[in-house]
Amino acid sequence: MCVNLIGIRKIPLIKEGDDLANIIINIANKEGVEICNEDIIVIAETAIAKAEGTVIDLKLIKPSVDAIEISEKTGKNSKLVEAIIGESADIIKIGPDFIICETKHGFICANAGIDESNIEDGFATPIPINPDKSAEKIRKEIETQTKKEVAVIISDTQGRPFREGAVGVAIGISGMESVWDQKGKLDLYKRPLQTTKIAVADELASAASIIMGQADEGIPVVIIRGVNYFKLLRNKIANSKPLIRPKEYDVFR
Amino acid sequence: MCVNLIGIRKIPLIKEGDDLANIIINIANKEGVEICNEDIIVIAETAIAKAEGTVIDLKLIKPSVDAIEISEKTGKNSKLVEAIIGESADIIKIGPDFIICETKHGFICANAGIDESNIEDGFATPIPINPDKSAEKIRKEIETQTKKEVAVIISDTQGRPFREGAVGVAIGISGMESVWDQKGKLDLYKRPLQTTKIAVADELASAASIIMGQADEGIPVVIIRGVNYFKLLRNKIANSKPLIRPKEYDVFR
Repeated sequence: MCVNLIGIRKIPLIKEGDDLANIIINIANKEGVEICNEDIIVIAETAIAKAEGTVIDLKLIKPSVDAIEISEKTGKNSKLVEAIIGESADIIKIGPDFIICETKHGFICANAGIDESNIEDGFATPIPINPDKSAEKIRKEIETQTKKEVAVIISDTQGRPFREGAVGVAIGISGMESVWDQKGKLDLYKRPLQTTKIAVADELASAASIIMGQADEGIPVVIIRGVNYFKLLRNKIANSKPLIRPKEYDVFR
Repeated sequence: MCVNLIGIRKIPLIKEGDDLANIIINIANKEGVEICNEDIIVIAETAIAKAEGTVIDLKLIKPSVDAIEISEKTGKNSKLVEAIIGESADIIKIGPDFIICETKHGFICANAGIDESNIEDGFATPIPINPDKSAEKIRKEIETQTKKEVAVIISDTQGRPFREGAVGVAIGISGMESVWDQKGKLDLYKRPLQTTKIAVADELASAASIIMGQADEGIPVVIIRGVNYFKLLRNKIANSKPLIRPKEYDVFR
């Protein structure tokens, strides 16, 4: 039983207006990788923000009074803080060198997911406006062009409470469920499972991250092939919302 | 660029005293998989607890007054609660149907990591006593027998704050670093990276979980092959401690 993580090398630096679906199909083909049925295509969110032209030009930002205050408390650049406020629905916690936010999408993460890496100096990439919609658009284009059934995941690298180090997580998905609710499934001893909800989209994003790296490798697209639950979780209207724990059930808020 | 996740099927139900290293090498061989240099072998913690004989017989447990009180608040079986207390250094939060603990190892997780799935009725598997040591023992045996350099990760499936669904995480490791500190590495634009610490052991455990499943698939061992940072992170005395965020830096405690 084998699953393959296939990193697509030689994807060019993405710029506004680029057709990511086309680029992925063409570069993959050139690299000898044909898109197959049930492929799960994981794309780094930076590539999406660049293609969609939502990159933030920090020079153009005027920090508000709030931003200047948070900047003083955190030691972060006040223009960056203003951008973070702009992307946030709520600021959860601040401290020396960190700002943990709830983004407008509902994700809890540092800096509202704004990333200053892998982008020109003075610029930053936010989480795409609607990562599920971005994933859907790319999935549909890839499916139309290749006549294959695929899923697309938009991934980000995020820290988490209690554990050190960031990991790949899913911030958008199309073509399959993000959470596998295994309620009713039986264990090795034919008894109902205890832990039933598995965040498969996050596990797939973490797996892709093993290849993507975070630095100058330049592998923003990873194809995951051979996942045996693809058919079971196939759903053309599923999105990433089930990954977000509702506020009222989150005991750490 | 390709990484393979190879699930080892037909591993028998593990019992106390079983030599896991031997079982893994033999069953893998029978299934046509030879251990290679730089393989990362991920083993589900339930298999370790069974082999090491630390399975908990809930019938033999006498719940304390504290356990009965927590049992009433959470709706959980008082014997199970007593077992959870026994595995915990601290109870972090309780509520209807949940107990979040700090285990004696320092992991923050539900039920102190005690699992009632994939074990006979009336029994439960705790996190192994010293998962790093368990990993080391198995790694050394596999390396001696096969003459290959490998890493071993002990994995668990755990929930997390803010996000729904459990994911695979590493609770023990031997043969490589658990966290990759990329400080000094440069991004696509030759600037120093922002997010520098990647929890590679957790990403590898999540990747393995894609194949392991949680139910009756019976695939407690996954070999991850082709990880390009193996050599860079090779370390015979590394352990899982860098994955645990020190209390004083954890703003959600």
